[in-house]
Amino acid sequence: MVRVALVGFGAVGRGFADAVLGGAPVDVDVVLVADSSSVAVDGDGLDLASVKKRKEDEGVVGDGEDTVGALEEAEYDVLVEASPTTLGDAEPAFGYMMTAIDNGAHVVTSNKGPLAMRYAELMEKADEAGVEVRMEGAVGGAIPTINTVRESLAGDDVSGVRGILNGTCNFILTRMLEEGLTYEHVLGEAQDMGIAESDPTFDVEGIDTALKCVILSNVLFEGERTLDDVDVDGITEVTPDSLRLARESGHVVKLVGEVSEDALSVAPRLVPEGHALDVGGTLNVVSFDADLAGEVTVTGHGAGSSETASALVSDLTAVVRKS
Amino acid sequence: MVRVALVGFGAVGRGFADAVLGGAPVDVDVVLVADSSSVAVDGDGLDLASVKKRKEDEGVVGDGEDTVGALEEAEYDVLVEASPTTLGDAEPAFGYMMTAIDNGAHVVTSNKGPLAMRYAELMEKADEAGVEVRMEGAVGGAIPTINTVRESLAGDDVSGVRGILNGTCNFILTRMLEEGLTYEHVLGEAQDMGIAESDPTFDVEGIDTALKCVILSNVLFEGERTLDDVDVDGITEVTPDSLRLARESGHVVKLVGEVSEDALSVAPRLVPEGHALDVGGTLNVVSFDADLAGEVTVTGHGAGSSETASALVSDLTAVVRKS
Repeated sequence: MVRVALVGFGAVGRGFADAVLGGAPVDVDVVLVADSSSVAVDGDGLDLASVKKRKEDEGVVGDGEDTVGALEEAEYDVLVEASPTTLGDAEPAFGYMMTAIDNGAHVVTSNKGPLAMRYAELMEKADEAGVEVRMEGAVGGAIPTINTVRESLAGDDVSGVRGILNGTCNFILTRMLEEGLTYEHVLGEAQDMGIAESDPTFDVEGIDTALKCVILSNVLFEGERTLDDVDVDGITEVTPDSLRLARESGHVVKLVGEVSEDALSVAPRLVPEGHALDVGGTLNVVSFDADLAGEVTVTGHGAGSSETASALVSDLTAVVRKS
Repeated sequence: MVRVALVGFGAVGRGFADAVLGGAPVDVDVVLVADSSSVAVDGDGLDLASVKKRKEDEGVVGDGEDTVGALEEAEYDVLVEASPTTLGDAEPAFGYMMTAIDNGAHVVTSNKGPLAMRYAELMEKADEAGVEVRMEGAVGGAIPTINTVRESLAGDDVSGVRGILNGTCNFILTRMLEEGLTYEHVLGEAQDMGIAESDPTFDVEGIDTALKCVILSNVLFEGERTLDDVDVDGITEVTPDSLRLARESGHVVKLVGEVSEDALSVAPRLVPEGHALDVGGTLNVVSFDADLAGEVTVTGHGAGSSETASALVSDLTAVVRKS
């Protein structure tokens, strides 16, 4: 039995709760649930269905208000941190993680903020405490990216990574090309479909992709890179004409993130049609250049409630199996 | 420090030795090396460069002849079994693995025989002894397939797998289509290039793909399937005309292995152009249908000395990190 504190009860947190209710491969007791304004704690295990109902009915998960205090006092083995990504000092998630580590808990997270903005601090603390920080859900949703580097390619020297890491951008570029529509038009469609946020800046300016590149770089090169180290261009200036011209030369235009020991970049790039990175719709794809394995490419759904929950559950399972 | 017994010193075994010499992520002492006719043992760790040289110069790895006896007597933590796949009773590899497990060692292998022909016996023995059997290198070479199911999708219900699991067949079909050449002609080319064996039966009749499907099925459904449970068709009857007709309807023909709880099959199938399974040359690709993650696809080099060594080293590293 693993005791879990779950912080963040939006789409991802609820997806994790649903996965636990549906039966995880390890026995899970969720003893703490927090959203942005409330917290519920029960050392014997919360009834997740009731917590979900209260969130729907009343907009809160419990009567408590002090999440950090609850994380200090409760007893749990793993913090599952699924609150929204914030930049700058990556608070409040960074503080939640540090508190949990102080409490002797492992961290499993889909939150890009602390991993992209304060990776070195976080890992130093985890190393000292002898706990793990796992982050498969932060990069590429359900696609094995972080664990491909850390585990499947453990014996390889991975010199670089290239990928399409934002489904919103990929949807917009794919549809602009297929239908000859403008960026503004397709963005409006994507917003109507729930594929783009009402404020799409984070996605379309390339920031989300850049954060994922920073995390991959930090894992690969044990570095201390942050968002400031990425050369970022988004897709807002891409025109239907440029997509048509690219196609005439046998290419598609994709928002590609590139990670190497020397540089990090995010920009619209020409990709040959039929190339491994030529995936459409909201799909994500990541290619690793490895010295023994050669090029290894993983493709799938990079975001979404159940998809991200899949990654959180697999990381939680890995923590339990190791300990 | 992990003590390894390495059995099999062909392309894969020597690839593993090279990876160890090049620096594995865990400290490795290879205390036993065996090929098909000889064995060398040194409890303090063999000099792998010398073993390789002796193999090149004299065709043997050491003065011993009794591999099973050596596996009984030596002290090691992990057997890396990299000898050639055999069918039927999967000997001698099956016996090597059982002996190592009796000796308390974990098994890391790229050998499909024991996993496809006697999976249940092997796993029962390993469970009793409390040791692991890891097999990433047996299916898809460097591509994470087995560990994607066991680890990355640990929280998912994986209902099926489809894949192109034999690079020789994929090379032949790709080249037949591109050049309009006959099967016999391209097979000859592939033999000249070292991509096909002089007796290509194992590959072109679909047996190699079928074995990999059996292993995936056994891992996914905890079953006791063997090669006899697979409906197998190879590529020897595929004509240039059929490939041309397929292309005219927007398809390519691929040798596809399909795994579900109900059935296992290997046969030439129509794949839409641009589909995730439409990969060319000697590439392999595997798609998993998972309930939380959706479709996850992994692509890369499915065979080769360093590629398979990559998988062996990652499995060895995983065993060490867990214990």
